Amino acid sequence: MATRSRTPKRPLKKRTSASDRLYEWIRREARSFFHDSRGSHAWDHTERVLQLCLRIGRKEKADLGILKLAAVLHDIGRSEEDRTNGKVCHSEAGAALARTILGAHGVPEDTITRVAHCIETHRFRKKTVPATKEAKVLFDADKLDSIGAVGIGRAFLFAGEVGARLHNKDRDIAKTLPYTKEDTAFREYMVKLRWVKDRIFTREGRRIAEERHRFMVEFFDRLDKESDSAL
Amino acid sequence: MATRSRTPKRPLKKRTSASDRLYEWIRREARSFFHDSRGSHAWDHTERVLQLCLRIGRKEKADLGILKLAAVLHDIGRSEEDRTNGKVCHSEAGAALARTILGAHGVPEDTITRVAHCIETHRFRKKTVPATKEAKVLFDADKLDSIGAVGIGRAFLFAGEVGARLHNKDRDIAKTLPYTKEDTAFREYMVKLRWVKDRIFTREGRRIAEERHRFMVEFFDRLDKESDSAL
Repeated sequence: MATRSRTPKRPLKKRTSASDRLYEWIRREARSFFHDSRGSHAWDHTERVLQLCLRIGRKEKADLGILKLAAVLHDIGRSEEDRTNGKVCHSEAGAALARTILGAHGVPEDTITRVAHCIETHRFRKKTVPATKEAKVLFDADKLDSIGAVGIGRAFLFAGEVGARLHNKDRDIAKTLPYTKEDTAFREYMVKLRWVKDRIFTREGRRIAEERHRFMVEFFDRLDKESDSAL
Repeated sequence: MATRSRTPKRPLKKRTSASDRLYEWIRREARSFFHDSRGSHAWDHTERVLQLCLRIGRKEKADLGILKLAAVLHDIGRSEEDRTNGKVCHSEAGAALARTILGAHGVPEDTITRVAHCIETHRFRKKTVPATKEAKVLFDADKLDSIGAVGIGRAFLFAGEVGARLHNKDRDIAKTLPYTKEDTAFREYMVKLRWVKDRIFTREGRRIAEERHRFMVEFFDRLDKESDSAL
């Protein structure tokens, strides 16, 4: 017995398929686009979106292979948008970059098309609406990361990055401008974040959104009251 | 009747005493120290601290005249601390500046001493402990503005200003450094903010602190869970 128990065991080697290896390779390539990103749009946002995609994607019975590729690649156009002060749209640029990267790895054309559609439509605009299940899941996951406690943190972090004030509840938000001292977390909440939950496509996404939304509303309500020394 | 109602009324003129005018003058002078402050330590922090001082000061039956002067002047040494990368302590520098300003306005020596003590001791260190009722109220008001929703907002804003990440719950906080990518809101919470409520002096301050603390704990708990896609 003693001898047997001392026999070294062969370590369990995790089987990795060719598609796992390809995914890991593409994930590393995607990450390299984020080496000088600011905190509010850093790689950790992609990691959270990936986790949300898997969570929602399983419930929605989406194609997780497509989703994983779309999630890790969805924001690789962000640095181009930042560099051009918003002239280049990061979802369009990202989809183009993704096509090139996936093509270079010999990914089938059908897969490329499906992944690129997710990336192209993850930023909601009239001309590009998510049409597939996977595109809807990515859209939802990306938006969910902008609300709740994570969304609040990201909004203030961004405000700090652009030199904005803590709060501007007494300003007419319609007259405030982005990338100025008035580009506060509260502005982002008023202009964008408070509408997010109504634009979610999937059932599981809506469930998460409603819970995160409730907390975000409570936060900004408290921020007002504390600012007036009423809490 | 019609003629009478059209008779112009003499506008009510608010009576301002010499001490009101002096206070307004000193308040403007204090504000001038903040023209290039970052959002997390801007003049609006002073305004919130002033309101909290009045709220707590009334309950504690503190001298509101002393408190108002101490509140508006309490952070005027902040820019000197920032300029010297922390070598100059802003409460010591602020107290010295306050003595000069108040002296130049002919404020009685006893008042100057009482105001300067508040400013000198508002940053808790062993060698300078708030000894008077007014100093304790200012200390509490300043600390209360670092917790709750306002405290959370200020912590992320500061993180954005120094280029920190959104979150670093998986790092050993003891090994992280201030003014780096690891100087996150979570670090500030772990190192400082979660202990604030236990250091409050006044009864009303403790009541406010406990309520704000509860919300702050809930926020960081949510931030962890959302980051792991568990909420």
